[in-house]
Amino acid sequence: MQDGRFDQIFREQFWQLLKWRRDVRNFRPEPLPPDLLRDILSATQFAPSVGLSESWRYVLVSRPEIRAQVREDFECANAQALAGYSGEKAALYARLKLAGLDSAPVHLAAFTDRGTAQGSGLGCRTMPEMLDYSVVAAITTLWLTARAYGVGMGWVSILNPDRISTILAVPAEWHLVAYLCIGYPERESPVPELERAGWEKRSGAIAVLER
Amino acid sequence: MQDGRFDQIFREQFWQLLKWRRDVRNFRPEPLPPDLLRDILSATQFAPSVGLSESWRYVLVSRPEIRAQVREDFECANAQALAGYSGEKAALYARLKLAGLDSAPVHLAAFTDRGTAQGSGLGCRTMPEMLDYSVVAAITTLWLTARAYGVGMGWVSILNPDRISTILAVPAEWHLVAYLCIGYPERESPVPELERAGWEKRSGAIAVLER
Repeated sequence: MQDGRFDQIFREQFWQLLKWRRDVRNFRPEPLPPDLLRDILSATQFAPSVGLSESWRYVLVSRPEIRAQVREDFECANAQALAGYSGEKAALYARLKLAGLDSAPVHLAAFTDRGTAQGSGLGCRTMPEMLDYSVVAAITTLWLTARAYGVGMGWVSILNPDRISTILAVPAEWHLVAYLCIGYPERESPVPELERAGWEKRSGAIAVLER
Repeated sequence: MQDGRFDQIFREQFWQLLKWRRDVRNFRPEPLPPDLLRDILSATQFAPSVGLSESWRYVLVSRPEIRAQVREDFECANAQALAGYSGEKAALYARLKLAGLDSAPVHLAAFTDRGTAQGSGLGCRTMPEMLDYSVVAAITTLWLTARAYGVGMGWVSILNPDRISTILAVPAEWHLVAYLCIGYPERESPVPELERAGWEKRSGAIAVLER
């Protein structure tokens, strides 16, 4: 590597990184070294953000009573989701493991600071959602960085965002983008867990219209 | 690399990849080899997507008359944005180069198919925005992959999304997430263009609350 140029060996390993990144729901119980969490999280400083707003804010959720409230909201949202399926799909949904909330040593919530003055609103006038998208870019960056260090991550979206914001007592202008479970995965696989469980297959198709 | 495990050499190069990824607004005029565009775009098949929905859809915009209409919408949105600033900030905004629409050999619009049945709605009931977030994850994946191949990308958000959807005549359930300019960058730098231009500084601070 020289001045932002990368060779074929790196590129091939980078493809492997993409292929082995998983939405992890089964974690080994041992904690992450605190320095490791700090290091992989610091990678998100290099994520793209609209107007250089760096709109990401994080909450590390460790207290058992707080985690219990998050878990309760998940159970509630999950039961409502299950009620929306019927027949085979309902049976399959009920069997899915959809969150690693119990086993993940690290719970990290990622928010957008929609009230930030940083970036002075550049690029946000017609697309205010860009502030949230910047947080998603940070999460994607974190996901890949974690994978490079053997750390797995799962994104839990079966939650009521406003309820989670209340539980975590964040500033009013913060908006929940993701609730993340982080830790060492129980197993490594290049196949998505939802595909192994028979819920959905990855098509890999890249549809491109031409205009 | 073996079974999704990566070594320190790879990790250090990966950090360099993060550091040298830029929001590029100045492109060299030469076209990308068509195979290269297809290859880097195919990396997005490995992006995370809610419920394995693979909700991303792409439109390659090449016809000059279509590009002219996109440019017209940019000019309109940009003039309105400029009107929102005053004093020094307005003068600085007017000097910024905010899009590579004229020089980028490739224009690629990325949409969410909000009507997709793939994934059966898993993970989307309380957070329907997850379908859009999956497209952002795909774009972030594309951005880093492009950088690994020496290709630059810029995300133009000074546009009216509904107007772009109309210009590109996409299906009604498609929602614009990004309009991307892609090509070889005029120059490489580890410093964001907005920072070089004096608009905003990257703080690099990672705020973490504890709960």
